[in-house]
Amino acid sequence: MASEEFSVREGELAVEPPPPTDAGLVFIGRIHTPWTSREETPRQGRQDGPVCRIEIFDPWVPGLKGLEDYRQVEVFYWLHRARRDLVLQNPRRDGDIRGVFALRSPVRPNPIGLSVAALVGIEGNVVLVRGLDCLDGTPLIDLKPDRCAYSPPKPGH
Amino acid sequence: MASEEFSVREGELAVEPPPPTDAGLVFIGRIHTPWTSREETPRQGRQDGPVCRIEIFDPWVPGLKGLEDYRQVEVFYWLHRARRDLVLQNPRRDGDIRGVFALRSPVRPNPIGLSVAALVGIEGNVVLVRGLDCLDGTPLIDLKPDRCAYSPPKPGH
Repeated sequence: MASEEFSVREGELAVEPPPPTDAGLVFIGRIHTPWTSREETPRQGRQDGPVCRIEIFDPWVPGLKGLEDYRQVEVFYWLHRARRDLVLQNPRRDGDIRGVFALRSPVRPNPIGLSVAALVGIEGNVVLVRGLDCLDGTPLIDLKPDRCAYSPPKPGH
Repeated sequence: MASEEFSVREGELAVEPPPPTDAGLVFIGRIHTPWTSREETPRQGRQDGPVCRIEIFDPWVPGLKGLEDYRQVEVFYWLHRARRDLVLQNPRRDGDIRGVFALRSPVRPNPIGLSVAALVGIEGNVVLVRGLDCLDGTPLIDLKPDRCAYSPPKPGH
């Protein structure tokens, strides 16, 4: 993997990024999926894909209260293995060079991944979902009700 | 604002969060909006709202190449004024207590905001969009083509 991570393809541009010290993240959980290498990880999650387990760490577990009211959840995770310096990329190795902000590549200045997953259930500190596309062990940084589905429940409902 | 930031409403739960040192973010730009206080900031952006300017910092500007092909863009930003410790919240002050992961509140362990904006144009290092709902001066952490609209363009198109 090392050679892949540090190579630059034809037409790509790597920059010297500033140090990533403007704000700090806390990992609030860990995502358990069936995929242990990039090669076997799907490019995009499918809502009929396998059930994955999102483990929430203390002290955040009470934050799940009420999530069961939603069918879809936005899952924000940290792509901890991605390089951060490629502003121009050649994703299909075909010379079609595109900027990082025109791609959903995991390689980006702040490698935050976002999937919309179908909520299957909640068991204690574990959220069961379908529709993820990340490696086993990926750090979790947030969960939110899907914006498409979100409307604040009325009092008493 | 200070009293609001440090007060806890009936039924809310503040925790002692771990230090946010698991990963570091770099601010890649700054968002310019008409809103300079929370009171005047819309709760949710509208795609017929005012044009806002997203300024991209060096060395990331080349990363905009190709973004003009998309009509909608996901804007990730850092809610730099939000507290991070409230796992149970009483958002409408009506006793309907909900966990942070069942809310799209800016108050969360990692205060990352996400809006889907309509792309109006790109002028040098500035991206013009409609549909934001953040304060003037908010730090930008990422831009991606909207997942709903995203399909990788074919070579030569």
